Amino acid sequence: MPATPVVLAVPGHEASVERLCARLAAEPGAALVRSFPDGELLVRIDTPVEGRDVVLVGSLDRPADKLLALLFLAETARDLGAARIGLVAPYLSFMRQDVRFNAGEGITSRYFGALVSRTVDWLVTVDPHLHRLRSLDAVYRIPTRIARSAPAIAAWIRDHVERPLLVGPDAESEQWVSAVADACGAPFQVLEKTRRGDRDVSVTAPDVRGHEARTPVLIDDIISTGRTMIEAVRQLAAARMAAPIVIGVHGVFADDALADLRAAGAAQIVTCNTLIHATNAICVWDAIAASTRGMLAP
Amino acid sequence: MPATPVVLAVPGHEASVERLCARLAAEPGAALVRSFPDGELLVRIDTPVEGRDVVLVGSLDRPADKLLALLFLAETARDLGAARIGLVAPYLSFMRQDVRFNAGEGITSRYFGALVSRTVDWLVTVDPHLHRLRSLDAVYRIPTRIARSAPAIAAWIRDHVERPLLVGPDAESEQWVSAVADACGAPFQVLEKTRRGDRDVSVTAPDVRGHEARTPVLIDDIISTGRTMIEAVRQLAAARMAAPIVIGVHGVFADDALADLRAAGAAQIVTCNTLIHATNAICVWDAIAASTRGMLAP
Repeated sequence: MPATPVVLAVPGHEASVERLCARLAAEPGAALVRSFPDGELLVRIDTPVEGRDVVLVGSLDRPADKLLALLFLAETARDLGAARIGLVAPYLSFMRQDVRFNAGEGITSRYFGALVSRTVDWLVTVDPHLHRLRSLDAVYRIPTRIARSAPAIAAWIRDHVERPLLVGPDAESEQWVSAVADACGAPFQVLEKTRRGDRDVSVTAPDVRGHEARTPVLIDDIISTGRTMIEAVRQLAAARMAAPIVIGVHGVFADDALADLRAAGAAQIVTCNTLIHATNAICVWDAIAASTRGMLAP
Repeated sequence: MPATPVVLAVPGHEASVERLCARLAAEPGAALVRSFPDGELLVRIDTPVEGRDVVLVGSLDRPADKLLALLFLAETARDLGAARIGLVAPYLSFMRQDVRFNAGEGITSRYFGALVSRTVDWLVTVDPHLHRLRSLDAVYRIPTRIARSAPAIAAWIRDHVERPLLVGPDAESEQWVSAVADACGAPFQVLEKTRRGDRDVSVTAPDVRGHEARTPVLIDDIISTGRTMIEAVRQLAAARMAAPIVIGVHGVFADDALADLRAAGAAQIVTCNTLIHATNAICVWDAIAASTRGMLAP
């Protein structure tokens, strides 16, 4: 019988470790990541890991802050004799720069994927932003599994929204909104976006004929600056629909995104708990635990 | 004849690129590292690098902020067809955790060295904190060269201090202070330190007999929290010596270190320009350029 796996948090994700261990036959491990005054790190793993699978848990938003801690925890576990080392990163960053849009640009998706692939033996994530790339295998060289948020989002909508009209704010959101629509049997439509800068986007008007009495539910995978959602909220208001519920799989919320989205007229803003945030209302850890179970030694 | 090398700055080190190019037959290159609102990075190299040696320049203090930019610049240069890619890191971090002091600790010197060794083909640095380790080869798997600051520090002392007494604040500083003493023909002594925490140290009293009329010059490789230097300044004051000049090769200056060191009674605080700081007064780029020249294609 294999030894019980040890689950360790990348700093800030201690609650996620508890969520995962509550669903798996795994032990929450104790580790320390301490910053010295000069910005260097001390890493220590206090739970014995020799001969055991180690699961590191932490999302990779604001990656500069987390990358060294993740690398050092993985290397330390390896040094201490861990068997296989996996990463459960509910949110995976650097999924957008997957081609060279302009001469001289780095293809950061590929570089980041190669770095993570050299660091851990397998990866579980939730709904990565696959758009031009068909599969994580295009940038990750290790076994990966994708946990899907659509069932949990659909269940939340069924429990909380009467007569929903699901709306994707742009073409890239179609995969998420259609999966949720399938799972909860609601109608959906997808708007079209034009992006002129990080914070400068416009989207087309929705076609609300026959849906006037429905509650619009905007769904996208990532809410970062929130500009796309804000424009979609405005288009729904212009079409005289009820104030929409806004659902993001991953609530990154750069700068004032949350306040701006509220000010634009969102009735409610709800996210999955892939990134820890006050808007978390939809738990996706059943799906994460199922994907993780498939990666651990039987 | 090989193509002219291209020198690119890790963000914040543009002035260092100019210093290096003024001393080498190399071209300052143009690169962009832009942060997206969510903390991800866009990297672009505008100078053609195909078939050319690329030299990345940047110190690795506060490493979390710089590591991704460095990794992505190196990978982008490689993708764009650069020949060999080197790193000139005048200050090299993660040189202190070179053994496992306590059970479960990560040996971050080794992990960081391995990471940098996978990223670039060679490394030039200034006076790395080698203490237990005899050589950078213990943690770096690529060719390395060490530029020495002692000649430049000795020249500065000869030009600015009459009758100096060089003082090393602890045993680890002996290698730096003795090298400077050799180069400027001044007497030196080394104090002994006891460390109880990041900011809690004590040092022994100096032996000032026969040196009462000299100006003490404290020398160490790294000034980080400044606690070691502050205790040494206090011991010199207690021994009724003149207010000392404090020289650091690498001025990291965590938090209020600089103000605290001034308040403790340092007459002047002087650093080499390995880390960009208002105290920089000693230029070590002749030595860096000589070491770099040895790494480039002949």
